Amino acid sequence: MSQSPSLSQLQEPNPFLRRHLGPDAQEQQAMLDTLGVASRSELIEQTVPPGIRFNRPLDLPPALDEQAALAKLAGYAAQNQLWTSLIGMGYHATITPTVILRNVLENPGWYTAYTPYQPEIAQGRLEALLNFQQMVIDLAGLPLANASLLDEATAAAEAMALAKRVARSKSNAFFADEHCHPQTLSVLKTRAEGFGFELIIDSVDNLASHQVFGALLQYPDTHGEVRDLRPLVDQLHGQQALACVAADILSLVVLTPPGELGADVVLGSTQRFGVPMGYGGPHAAYFACRDDYKRAMPGRIIGVSRDARGNTALRMALQTREQHIRREKANSNICTAQVLLANIAGFYAVYHGPEGLQRIAQRVHRLTFILAAGLEAKGIKRLNQHFFDTLTLDVGGTQAAIIESAEDARVNLRILGRGHLGVSLDETCDEATVLKLFDIFLGVDHGLDIATLDQLALPEGIPGALVRRTPILQHPVFNLHHSETEMLRYLKQLENKDLALNQSMIPLGSCTMKLNATSEMIPITWPEFAQLHPFAPAAQVQGYKAMIDELEAWLCAITGFDAICMQPNSGAQGEYAGLMAITRYHQSRHQAGRTICLIPSSAHGTNPASAQMAGMEVVIVECDEDGNVDLDDLKAKARQAGERLSCLMVTYPSTHGVYEEGIREICEVVHQLGGQVYMDGANLNAQVGLARPADIGADVSHMNLHKTFCIPHGGGGPGMGPIGIRAHLKPFVASHPVVPVPGLDPNNSAVSAAPWGSASILPISWMYIAMMGPQLADASEVAILSANYLASQLRDAFPVLYRGRNQRVAHECIFDLRPLKALTGITEEDVAKRLMDYGFHAPTMSFPVPGTLMVEPTESESKAELDRFVEAMLAIRAEIAEVQKGTWPAEDNPLRHAPHTLADVLAPWNRPYGLEQGIAPSAHARQHKYWPAVNRVDNVYGDRNLFCACVPVEAYR
Amino acid sequence: MSQSPSLSQLQEPNPFLRRHLGPDAQEQQAMLDTLGVASRSELIEQTVPPGIRFNRPLDLPPALDEQAALAKLAGYAAQNQLWTSLIGMGYHATITPTVILRNVLENPGWYTAYTPYQPEIAQGRLEALLNFQQMVIDLAGLPLANASLLDEATAAAEAMALAKRVARSKSNAFFADEHCHPQTLSVLKTRAEGFGFELIIDSVDNLASHQVFGALLQYPDTHGEVRDLRPLVDQLHGQQALACVAADILSLVVLTPPGELGADVVLGSTQRFGVPMGYGGPHAAYFACRDDYKRAMPGRIIGVSRDARGNTALRMALQTREQHIRREKANSNICTAQVLLANIAGFYAVYHGPEGLQRIAQRVHRLTFILAAGLEAKGIKRLNQHFFDTLTLDVGGTQAAIIESAEDARVNLRILGRGHLGVSLDETCDEATVLKLFDIFLGVDHGLDIATLDQLALPEGIPGALVRRTPILQHPVFNLHHSETEMLRYLKQLENKDLALNQSMIPLGSCTMKLNATSEMIPITWPEFAQLHPFAPAAQVQGYKAMIDELEAWLCAITGFDAICMQPNSGAQGEYAGLMAITRYHQSRHQAGRTICLIPSSAHGTNPASAQMAGMEVVIVECDEDGNVDLDDLKAKARQAGERLSCLMVTYPSTHGVYEEGIREICEVVHQLGGQVYMDGANLNAQVGLARPADIGADVSHMNLHKTFCIPHGGGGPGMGPIGIRAHLKPFVASHPVVPVPGLDPNNSAVSAAPWGSASILPISWMYIAMMGPQLADASEVAILSANYLASQLRDAFPVLYRGRNQRVAHECIFDLRPLKALTGITEEDVAKRLMDYGFHAPTMSFPVPGTLMVEPTESESKAELDRFVEAMLAIRAEIAEVQKGTWPAEDNPLRHAPHTLADVLAPWNRPYGLEQGIAPSAHARQHKYWPAVNRVDNVYGDRNLFCACVPVEAYR
Repeated sequence: MSQSPSLSQLQEPNPFLRRHLGPDAQEQQAMLDTLGVASRSELIEQTVPPGIRFNRPLDLPPALDEQAALAKLAGYAAQNQLWTSLIGMGYHATITPTVILRNVLENPGWYTAYTPYQPEIAQGRLEALLNFQQMVIDLAGLPLANASLLDEATAAAEAMALAKRVARSKSNAFFADEHCHPQTLSVLKTRAEGFGFELIIDSVDNLASHQVFGALLQYPDTHGEVRDLRPLVDQLHGQQALACVAADILSLVVLTPPGELGADVVLGSTQRFGVPMGYGGPHAAYFACRDDYKRAMPGRIIGVSRDARGNTALRMALQTREQHIRREKANSNICTAQVLLANIAGFYAVYHGPEGLQRIAQRVHRLTFILAAGLEAKGIKRLNQHFFDTLTLDVGGTQAAIIESAEDARVNLRILGRGHLGVSLDETCDEATVLKLFDIFLGVDHGLDIATLDQLALPEGIPGALVRRTPILQHPVFNLHHSETEMLRYLKQLENKDLALNQSMIPLGSCTMKLNATSEMIPITWPEFAQLHPFAPAAQVQGYKAMIDELEAWLCAITGFDAICMQPNSGAQGEYAGLMAITRYHQSRHQAGRTICLIPSSAHGTNPASAQMAGMEVVIVECDEDGNVDLDDLKAKARQAGERLSCLMVTYPSTHGVYEEGIREICEVVHQLGGQVYMDGANLNAQVGLARPADIGADVSHMNLHKTFCIPHGGGGPGMGPIGIRAHLKPFVASHPVVPVPGLDPNNSAVSAAPWGSASILPISWMYIAMMGPQLADASEVAILSANYLASQLRDAFPVLYRGRNQRVAHECIFDLRPLKALTGITEEDVAKRLMDYGFHAPTMSFPVPGTLMVEPTESESKAELDRFVEAMLAIRAEIAEVQKGTWPAEDNPLRHAPHTLADVLAPWNRPYGLEQGIAPSAHARQHKYWPAVNRVDNVYGDRNLFCACVPVEAYR
Repeated sequence: MSQSPSLSQLQEPNPFLRRHLGPDAQEQQAMLDTLGVASRSELIEQTVPPGIRFNRPLDLPPALDEQAALAKLAGYAAQNQLWTSLIGMGYHATITPTVILRNVLENPGWYTAYTPYQPEIAQGRLEALLNFQQMVIDLAGLPLANASLLDEATAAAEAMALAKRVARSKSNAFFADEHCHPQTLSVLKTRAEGFGFELIIDSVDNLASHQVFGALLQYPDTHGEVRDLRPLVDQLHGQQALACVAADILSLVVLTPPGELGADVVLGSTQRFGVPMGYGGPHAAYFACRDDYKRAMPGRIIGVSRDARGNTALRMALQTREQHIRREKANSNICTAQVLLANIAGFYAVYHGPEGLQRIAQRVHRLTFILAAGLEAKGIKRLNQHFFDTLTLDVGGTQAAIIESAEDARVNLRILGRGHLGVSLDETCDEATVLKLFDIFLGVDHGLDIATLDQLALPEGIPGALVRRTPILQHPVFNLHHSETEMLRYLKQLENKDLALNQSMIPLGSCTMKLNATSEMIPITWPEFAQLHPFAPAAQVQGYKAMIDELEAWLCAITGFDAICMQPNSGAQGEYAGLMAITRYHQSRHQAGRTICLIPSSAHGTNPASAQMAGMEVVIVECDEDGNVDLDDLKAKARQAGERLSCLMVTYPSTHGVYEEGIREICEVVHQLGGQVYMDGANLNAQVGLARPADIGADVSHMNLHKTFCIPHGGGGPGMGPIGIRAHLKPFVASHPVVPVPGLDPNNSAVSAAPWGSASILPISWMYIAMMGPQLADASEVAILSANYLASQLRDAFPVLYRGRNQRVAHECIFDLRPLKALTGITEEDVAKRLMDYGFHAPTMSFPVPGTLMVEPTESESKAELDRFVEAMLAIRAEIAEVQKGTWPAEDNPLRHAPHTLADVLAPWNRPYGLEQGIAPSAHARQHKYWPAVNRVDNVYGDRNLFCACVPVEAYR
């Protein structure tokens, strides 16, 4: 045994890499053999244009193993301090019921799911989202709600945009109550600037003196005042303007809903419904409106429809409204929602039910009552007459002393100017909290006693006219699952309906559904990351700061940019933030006329939508027949734009899945003409370690941390879209009105509600990079290898639409179904649905080219899984051949009837193909059958008969 | 709003109670109405004999809500200190791969499952256990392994019992190497005492001088010595004795397996394969033996068989060996295994594969090499010549100073007498650990350098003759799932095959499958509970001490006993521990002749088995036709026993599910004749808060914390079976050789390896009691209500076999299937399997009465779930009626073919009943179909063709 290997031989250089990559070295070699190349580096040389190659290791610290990375991050977590934060301003401590915490937030069955574009395999989360919508409808008092937006501030901005679109008023001004939360006002400013609206921020008392197309009111307002909005709403309606109300979701349990006060749009955060504050996010914002506005409603709406058998089936409704269809006509670039968090908020309502929520809301209110009464008795002046959970107090000259007492007690209050202080209570508060506040405000000898105060006839907190009379949450789903056993089983029933990454690959082109490793996910529910208020003082968040600083430095090393703006909380937000920075940059150079944004025809729909929102004029650049940007057209249009050229938005590798050879020249053309280059980072997974956006020529680019850097898709959000910027753009990115970003002009208005976006999911990307180190490049290489392997295995069956140099694709490839459709009538949708019968999630359908499927295997899928997919696709090709041969009629074959369900099994079987062919066409399906919950969903029926609330239970029978 | 409820009105007195109980107040009332009683208390008065009622609130602190309980427990956790424990002695730090931690240990799909008695709905965990057995077979080098025992020490005791049964030697003596772990020797002592064996503890050098029926050797021994066992094995075989070897599982990766050295039995702990030390447990022990001994093998063996369609199917093999069949002839009372932990250990091997395990073992060994070389170079004398991971060092007079240095560095060493110290390395150790040890042993100026030492030709650690040559883990399952994505999906595939509490009620009579609440489960994976060595110094475990002390006090309050012995780590262990205490008590009073144990015929099989193991003679007491103990027979047999009467073992309420009226008199009879009363606590869930075992007359009783106090069943373990004792028995319960129990004679030998049994799962029961408080009684009452509700709803369809006063049952009831069987041939097994098609786990089959089903709904099932069960049972009764009427043949009907599978759907359907009738006979099944993975399993075939290792993958095709 003295020949035993030495320690250094036994040390695996990067043990996590082996876990993250699907194929091991041997399998990679087999795949390379298939491609006829000797090594991965030979393949990369064939594939990635040499002119853009980054030919050195990434400047990142050596990879840590999982335990070491967790330990290092735990060190940062320990630098955060968990004080009692009573700051309010839209963020409140809350209790995530542990059954939801463990079985949803910490369960890959929920967090690795994709956006429910394929409803047949997503009925579980669609039902959860419908619950969320029903909850919002009930609480807001409006008939229609969407399935979440990014945060309250951007939801307010979406309301403004909607108001402009639908209001009959011809005004170009939008009014915002000066007592809205400051971050909301800041985001409104940014958004108004992009749209070219005049934003009036003033006291509501002056509302009548303005002509506007809409207004945002806050209920209760940021200082806690509860005001009857009816007179204001009437004023707005009088001038044919929309009344939009940002409302605290918990207060609506006991307050008259804004819908009943006449509001046209109601929005807000659902954070305090069980979603940890997370230093700012992610949380789901809600958005409800009148039925009239349904086609102008931003974001995703879940609706009820029927399936091919006429059974109730859920799906995303009115998708034709979405930015990927409307493109530069879109009034919103919303794409990612906050599904995982919306689900949690909806489940919180399911778990507590109407009585439970009432108890919580009434208890918070009662505690606030008692606090108010005690302070009033001791002569402290309250500035808001009515209140739900928030008091604004005038403490005059004692402010400093009170703040010091609060610090001693590890309590954060809201510190306002002029000797004012704010305090907001929440469901984690109790008698002890109130006593502690008495001590803080009054000194320990205050002599107040909770029980005595509780018996007093207390001052009216909520005006009688604003006490809620309408019941909430009457649907059975909110009244059946109150024991933990029932709740657990309900969650499991829904989970079991869905296909997520924990069961199968999800080969979604452009979406990079890679491994979301457990060690990456574990830290996000550590209390030290989960339970911090975004506006907590800097001294309490040093761990966050260290982690974010390090992550920013790493992202700079990976992209070549000089700085990162961490605020955008989705990819589309990143686009918008980047374009706004470009706009401000041009303005700073007195070139405000530069407003034309060139966008290739193959671009993601968010690109033109973002440009439109940033006040730009979109000019489409054509692609040549190889799918590349037509350089001549680009040059012509750039020259034509001339002094008006603002920028080019370009995706790299292209959305066609190829590394365009001309990318450097493309960027140079734009730069030479005074334009900037915005690089859409959707495909960054094909660049990391191989090329850097900034080196290629990008001035700004967003990174989808939920694609390239392992944040799970959560069934349709959260995401994170920070932008990398070159130094000249740095002065123009978003700051924050409450937590100004060091080094930036504090007047730079915000793009998101929270200063660092969805900060609490950043540990996921931090962990990924910490555990991969410079070997991140291996991931990109294997992703490219896998895509080329699939292309090679399937190209004889399905033509690959676009290829780059040496006939290679990048990290994804497009299979063209149009020739087969022409021959057989079988569509890309039929193939997508048929894949479900084989146990797969469909690839991306008809993007960027109608009639195609775009497949992105990512680096995390094993060769066995890739082969299983190939086998399924070839079997499907053989099925299409049978249709072609006439064995099966064009309308009666396993493809057209796909997906197959238990209902098909139970119905009389009178198909020209066998039952086994229908439901279990592969060995894998016979062994590990996944059953779609419904047959093919009828989208047209649903949109014609729009119904977006919980269905009566009988509908499921 | 000034009329808003006061705080006290808004305060829910016990918010967890509402989550724990299935039916809410309204549903309870509906159930009471059905029973024709006005209130729960009226029902309890009708049901529980007044003579035994405990008529005051339990003396427990008021219930805490979930967050408050978690916070209090976190306070205890914070009092534990996480040092680096290099103590060894069978417990080693290990890394639980996070994908396994989250998706198995923290996943209710795994931890709420029941023992796989119903294999058709348990193929997932059966496959996991088969992996475990294959891993053990490979590592031990023997052809047969079981699916885990409680711990290494009890496994050694089981080996001794097996040796006695199968050895040809007529000796009554068993030899144990004095260098076995001390806790193993202690448990052997206890067990030898019970069996009446002579236990010889001596140096292996003296083995030849003893005549024995078997011997236990340790490999490597407790001081780390690695010895070639062949000469010792030959000596044993020469005298027709068995060679049993306790072996470290990780060492076997690189050492010649004991099986190849001739060992007949190999056993040990699999803790260090990814299972946290948990301050002593739970962990899975492994046990492997020669094929000849398969019918004498203790514990459960998973075997391969086939189903009704001839497809491969797994199930527990050779169940006729089990104690519930052999009863007083059993040589083992093993019932609960450690399934959850065995699964984790097996998955650890799947995750790492052969190369991964080799790397881990070689690295641990290499680090030990380097440590040994450095210390030797500096003149520290090593006492073990060869080693794997453990060094025993003679440091002479510097011992105290070294210990102090170690304490400064927060390192625990093993402290031995005579200036000796032990150190054991593990997979969490690295170069820094070794350097730290150099600092500790040599002072910081030692000048040693790891890299230099790593290059040296090092002394031989493992003798050449003992280097493993045989490959391990060649089966594909250990070579396919090394990426995290593949591992995650493999875990999910297995989970999806099984039916656990997260999908359906599991109405198992006598097993109390109640809610395992998330808040109860969360603390067990906190590092402060999970990562402590059981022999860590007292100062480091103050949090554990406080928690255990409190839990003991609460259990005393609940049971009326004077003290608790927390050591037994299963119910059967508790029985054994209690009986041993009774035996020692009699002996202390010079009544050693008291050896007769009276046991009612209805008893659990573990009762007679435990009595037999405790050296008692079992005398069966008959039951009368009402199922009660026949008092006359009891009196007669007790008098007949006379001076030889040791005790009565009695279950209360009886295993027939009724509160026997005569229980007090029964106890009095036994006491009057000088006997003791052992109360089997299996049915304690029907007593808590309503009656107390000690008040009724019990002297000792075990509590199944995994039944009554919410520890989940884990698919067949872990369990915990602490015993409550009256003061006179307290001096006679188990202490521990390494961590003596305060107040006990340290010579009281142990019953389990660890001083507090499976300490790390005690927080589950602590949380349950903390959150329920005195309202624990509500749980018992609702459990009784639910059982009576089921009995009432089903009694017209299936006769209820036994009832107590006022025709009430206790917390469970027995439905008699024999009359229907006589009429139709349909058996209780047919009904059990048919329930699977309705989405239910079968009730307990044929216990305690053959031909019956015993149903225990527990308090955690909602009325909706109970009604769904009633509906299913009534539908099944209607199906039986069709057989009775001749609509369906006796051998060709949905009952006989149950359960139905996908294979049935895919095969030609030529049954006299419809497909829908077969696979989805209820609305619930159509909506939430659970698919059993295999058709009815053929047990006889499997036992005749015993195969208990992983099957070739092709077998599944």
